[in-house]
Amino acid sequence: MALIVHKYGGTSMGSVERIQNVAKRVAKWMRAGHQVVVVPSAMSGETNRLLGLAKDINPDASPRELDQIASTGEQVSSGLLALALLREGVDAVSYAGWQVTVHTDSSFTKARIKSIDDQKLLADLNAGRAVVVTGFQGVDPNGNITTLGRGGSDTSAVAMAAALKADECLIYTDVDGVYTTDPRVCEDARRLDKITFEEMLEMASLGSKVLQIRSVEFAGKYKVKTRVLSSLTDPLMPLDLEMKSGTLITFEEDSTMEAAVISGIAFARDEAKITVLGVPDRPGIAYQILGPIADANIDVDMIIQNQSNEGVTDFTFTVPRADYQKALDLLKKNVQGHIQAKEITGDAKVSKVSVVGVGMRSHVGVASKMFRTLSEEGINILMISTSEIKISVVIDEKYMELAVRALHKAFELDQK
Amino acid sequence: MALIVHKYGGTSMGSVERIQNVAKRVAKWMRAGHQVVVVPSAMSGETNRLLGLAKDINPDASPRELDQIASTGEQVSSGLLALALLREGVDAVSYAGWQVTVHTDSSFTKARIKSIDDQKLLADLNAGRAVVVTGFQGVDPNGNITTLGRGGSDTSAVAMAAALKADECLIYTDVDGVYTTDPRVCEDARRLDKITFEEMLEMASLGSKVLQIRSVEFAGKYKVKTRVLSSLTDPLMPLDLEMKSGTLITFEEDSTMEAAVISGIAFARDEAKITVLGVPDRPGIAYQILGPIADANIDVDMIIQNQSNEGVTDFTFTVPRADYQKALDLLKKNVQGHIQAKEITGDAKVSKVSVVGVGMRSHVGVASKMFRTLSEEGINILMISTSEIKISVVIDEKYMELAVRALHKAFELDQK
Repeated sequence: MALIVHKYGGTSMGSVERIQNVAKRVAKWMRAGHQVVVVPSAMSGETNRLLGLAKDINPDASPRELDQIASTGEQVSSGLLALALLREGVDAVSYAGWQVTVHTDSSFTKARIKSIDDQKLLADLNAGRAVVVTGFQGVDPNGNITTLGRGGSDTSAVAMAAALKADECLIYTDVDGVYTTDPRVCEDARRLDKITFEEMLEMASLGSKVLQIRSVEFAGKYKVKTRVLSSLTDPLMPLDLEMKSGTLITFEEDSTMEAAVISGIAFARDEAKITVLGVPDRPGIAYQILGPIADANIDVDMIIQNQSNEGVTDFTFTVPRADYQKALDLLKKNVQGHIQAKEITGDAKVSKVSVVGVGMRSHVGVASKMFRTLSEEGINILMISTSEIKISVVIDEKYMELAVRALHKAFELDQK
Repeated sequence: MALIVHKYGGTSMGSVERIQNVAKRVAKWMRAGHQVVVVPSAMSGETNRLLGLAKDINPDASPRELDQIASTGEQVSSGLLALALLREGVDAVSYAGWQVTVHTDSSFTKARIKSIDDQKLLADLNAGRAVVVTGFQGVDPNGNITTLGRGGSDTSAVAMAAALKADECLIYTDVDGVYTTDPRVCEDARRLDKITFEEMLEMASLGSKVLQIRSVEFAGKYKVKTRVLSSLTDPLMPLDLEMKSGTLITFEEDSTMEAAVISGIAFARDEAKITVLGVPDRPGIAYQILGPIADANIDVDMIIQNQSNEGVTDFTFTVPRADYQKALDLLKKNVQGHIQAKEITGDAKVSKVSVVGVGMRSHVGVASKMFRTLSEEGINILMISTSEIKISVVIDEKYMELAVRALHKAFELDQK
């Protein structure tokens, strides 16, 4: 008997029939003698419908009230799933975050989980009940409902697994695992049976949208054995097959076999880069440039500052393409004169491609192989950034697919 | 400065525009220096949508889970109203029942309020905030969400007013008050400026659907000054006019003027009557007939047992027309043989008409006037039932409108 947390996304909960399928799957696990906690998202479209109503009424909506409103989507889908389980003959009960209790801080619309009480859940599990707990939400120290932000149900599920010391956290989703790269870009992409937590973190942050990045951080921090697998398979498929499907996120580099140097190629298509040319090279200049950008809630990703030359330097960074014009206007209007920069230029049609793998720690030559591969395809590298387990380059958007395919082949990701 | 509770029904909260109108009205009261607690229903149609989803998934749904699901409708409308108030420049906050706290028993889908904590609400009110509290719901001693049943928001509002010792509870609805009878049946129907609590109770229980009957009981028990008025007027109409509009439910018979003998004519169209003929007249016979009916959750209204004749008697009662066939089948199948009744007959096309008024306590002749009026119209009376302040008759459905109009005129309800 194992204690398992299941998480189902909005698509998996998207209709009466799909909710019934989720119930069939959970019932199968229960009948096999396992204890199951299920964390469902709101039915697909519901959170957008609720936030749309709120925006219609008040475009500058209070985050506290948005959370009161948006949190109801998961409460409904949790109640419906409990009803579906009862109909399957499985004793079940649903709880909202505040009933568990899931304690969070007070950062409305993007709260962080602080702790989860396990007494109520364990009592129900030990009484043979399936427990359905709303994802995406909790309650702050003042009794206000909070939500964890988009994709927060992944984080809820992993945090629930950590609090209950669950044997495994199964993230059921509409893809069947984590791939070496996006199969829509590279048809040779291959599903990984395993990926390390650190690689998953880089893949998630680099645009592979399988898991919310905070859930991966949580899994890493609390060593939660997490598996990403498909919710679209036959809910009654044999349990031993289902338990081996998808991609397992592990916490140890596999020592039993020769680890691949690179696990995957991640990419982010919609990037933009901005360069501040001829900036006097003095302390505080980076803050003077990036401070106003951060204040405007624009995410800055890669940052590069060249070696200064005769007391002036160039400063380049990337932002999401959607924020490009806003960032550029901001710098030209409020910053350029102030820091005496010569010129501000940019390019809104760039993409980022990264190779990721814990194997590169012990293998030299990954960078040179990457650069040679791109060079052979005639792709110019605009920016480079590295971490211990990944190398990212910014290139012209039009070469992105070509770069992904060439790197996928060069690092032999199509071969097991 | 007064402390006022406003209640708005589902129609008043039915769209973005209507919610904005409610906010304008509440803002007007706040700006005039009053403290306001607002209890909104779910947006019209929402509760039915949620319960429909639940029934689709599990026709025999768990009442606890139904309450988890159905309670979200009011949470959404409360959050939206708080947002609309903030947009009107009024500081506002919304609470679900469990956040207040509204304590109830554990009778899911038909819970009763036990107490309401006032600290949080008073703190907000004293800080100059409008407080929006979900109607229809509370939380039981085990932290489960409960709902109060259909129309429960009226009860929530009156209970809130009682807990806060509010100066008045204003029930905004889609009619402009309580009428002497339904204007659709009798065009001379006149809006009452005042009605006593006891009369309102009889009117509500007899089919005048302006207020949920439990809210009237609550108002009576805690002496809450309650006014029924229209939410469809201009939200910015002058406050002194609005404060005098609608119908006030009072707790004292008016001594300053000659009270009318009768306040109104109530009716219930869709009734049915069932007669058990030739029943041996022995103790327990009423229970043997009505027990199985009650067990099947069928409401029995009027009950009449004739004087027995040679040891046998006839037993007649009324049920809602929708339950007629079920009740009849039940009696014929399970009861008739058992109690040795000669025959079971029924009539599914009867209606109930009642005259209501505290004045009849001190006036004789109300019954005879009622019976004479019906007789003059050639209307046969099938059953009669009386209480201290009302007389009800069951008649053939086809005479219902005629009876209402004739009685309205006979008791001079068209004249102030």
